[in-house]
Amino acid sequence: MKATIALLPGDGIGPEVVAQARILLDAIAARFGHTFTIEEGLIGGIAIDETGDPLPPETVALCERADAVLLGAVGGPKWSDPNAPVRPEQGLLKLRATLGVYANLRPVAPHPAAAKFAPLKPELLEGVDLLFVRELTGGAYFGEKGREDNGRVAFDVARYSVEEIERVTRRAAQLARGRRKKITHVDKANVLETSRLWRSVVTRVFGDEFPDIEFEHVLVDAMTMHLLHRPASFDVILTENLFGDILTDEASVLAGSMGLLPSASIGDGRAGLYEPIHGSAPDIAGQGIANPYATLLSVALLLRHSLGLDAEARAVESAVSQALDAGVLTRDLTAEGAVSTSQAGEYVAARVREAA
Amino acid sequence: MKATIALLPGDGIGPEVVAQARILLDAIAARFGHTFTIEEGLIGGIAIDETGDPLPPETVALCERADAVLLGAVGGPKWSDPNAPVRPEQGLLKLRATLGVYANLRPVAPHPAAAKFAPLKPELLEGVDLLFVRELTGGAYFGEKGREDNGRVAFDVARYSVEEIERVTRRAAQLARGRRKKITHVDKANVLETSRLWRSVVTRVFGDEFPDIEFEHVLVDAMTMHLLHRPASFDVILTENLFGDILTDEASVLAGSMGLLPSASIGDGRAGLYEPIHGSAPDIAGQGIANPYATLLSVALLLRHSLGLDAEARAVESAVSQALDAGVLTRDLTAEGAVSTSQAGEYVAARVREAA
Ligand SMILES: CC(C)[C@H](C(=O)O)[C@@H](O)C(=O)O
Ligand SMILES: CC(C)[C@H](C(=O)O)[C@@H](O)C(=O)O
Repeated sequence: MKATIALLPGDGIGPEVVAQARILLDAIAARFGHTFTIEEGLIGGIAIDETGDPLPPETVALCERADAVLLGAVGGPKWSDPNAPVRPEQGLLKLRATLGVYANLRPVAPHPAAAKFAPLKPELLEGVDLLFVRELTGGAYFGEKGREDNGRVAFDVARYSVEEIERVTRRAAQLARGRRKKITHVDKANVLETSRLWRSVVTRVFGDEFPDIEFEHVLVDAMTMHLLHRPASFDVILTENLFGDILTDEASVLAGSMGLLPSASIGDGRAGLYEPIHGSAPDIAGQGIANPYATLLSVALLLRHSLGLDAEARAVESAVSQALDAGVLTRDLTAEGAVSTSQAGEYVAARVREAA
Repeated sequence: MKATIALLPGDGIGPEVVAQARILLDAIAARFGHTFTIEEGLIGGIAIDETGDPLPPETVALCERADAVLLGAVGGPKWSDPNAPVRPEQGLLKLRATLGVYANLRPVAPHPAAAKFAPLKPELLEGVDLLFVRELTGGAYFGEKGREDNGRVAFDVARYSVEEIERVTRRAAQLARGRRKKITHVDKANVLETSRLWRSVVTRVFGDEFPDIEFEHVLVDAMTMHLLHRPASFDVILTENLFGDILTDEASVLAGSMGLLPSASIGDGRAGLYEPIHGSAPDIAGQGIANPYATLLSVALLLRHSLGLDAEARAVESAVSQALDAGVLTRDLTAEGAVSTSQAGEYVAARVREAA
């Protein structure tokens, strides 16, 4: 097939890990006979530095004509004043809204080579295979916000419509059908009105359209405990934007390293957005030691969800798994014999080139 | 001294654990020569059943004339329809607002007898001694909330004023002075305007008034990971209402059982409100097996923070510690030889009666 893929390296370690994604995409194209047109765009702090805008119009145009977008990371101490007029994160939030990617998929399935770095007792990690579906374009992230009373009062409005809840619920349910058919919906319905709307819409959608899926509602505070006491008991976890932000970071510890966790953000129609869940890691940027696997696994999600190339996605996932099994580990995963970012990326690309 | 203490047993296991608090208060009064006038009031589901109101006016009047309020727990499946016109939690939220208890203190310091039940690797728990200071009367809990567009859109407004942030920040800083003088302020300043106000007010208050306290700002999503990877590196953790709800439940796993964690909610002037952080546990209610220690430790906080009785508070804490050391454990803490709620409560009261 022919596809156009936008790469947005961004800040910090973003360019280093995205460079490995480019090598991997070339390997996929060669091995499976596809033609990928790859174009790079600016986002985040570097875009502010070069254009004054964390999401310049050229980047928006690039993403709108692309079939899929792969992002590295945005932000860093240079742009971290929360009261600055423009901030790198604004570019990312605006891109999510522009692409309409309302469903953020974050799988968490610990690999043994990394799970030993998890803070949890090893026996609790057996059988853990989670898929978070986080609503990504609504809630307090995108509601009205501002100051009143001469700046002495600040406010944020969280807002959700029935339609916003329905579409992400259906996405989660469809994904659950390809898995263990179990959804845990997380909210704070004993306090928030938005949660009460979520609870009633989720209940209705499952009752009417997905009678084959088992579902439950759990309060967000309780969920933080259940995720640690019995992570293997969950399958698909559906939640709103802010709770999803918090819970997916918490759950990331189950995998032993943030450096292994990919994400896919998808909507209806336009390009999907793929990114590692780790940040720009300014403390290790430029040293060639960052773990590229989260980004390479994000490429797998891109191949599967935006291009419909499931065999290619599986080839990438298998290659990363082989790398972990073979002890091809970056510094976050091993004290001794750590490989560099490009060695890790090359190993995975080589496995893909020879994939059966 | 003479003091009036309001007991609000509430729902589920609430009455069982509060019964042990009453025995303990009698033991303290006898041992240290105080006169405690103890009066009970209705709150939560039982108050809805008996009066239609989750916080009847008599309970408000009782709490307003009391020196301190001890609450068991509210809620249960009988009243759990999120769309019901009145809900048990409303009674609790209204009580917090009525008493103006804006600072919710939740200490987490694992005791070895329970820490083995924590999901974390034991070495991570060494030296963990946290004090959460959660803002309790603002944010999305108390902002405007409702429906628009014929019920098809729901919203919640989170709002904070400079004054609300200042007073709880000062409380946290004063508490930090009696500890390791380190505060971690948790927010989501890369997204929320309320967080950006928090960040600037916290920075100013520390700079101007508490130069002796070390402080840092951490994003809430990152904090969920740090709490698991390096819990011992934190001292006082200051945060807004909803993040505090979520993070304190997450951190409760460090202690091995929710049944050990007390809380104190204090304001300026009126009575403080003390409650275990666990809920009403309807699944084990009425069986006499609930762990009363969180409630007894809440009594210790009541003695210290509302009555200024520090020696008495320490006697209670030492008695609970002796009980844990001696293996006087309820069913949440031991598979074999579990004691009942009243046996555990009696053991602690007996240690207090003989305290030096
Ligand atoms: C960078 C930040 C705005 C972002 C978010 O909060 O969504 C990040 O934490 C994430 O989870 O992707
Ligand atoms: C019962 C509920 C309203 C309450 C809260 O969210 O504050 C509880 O979870 C708590 O933490 O005290």
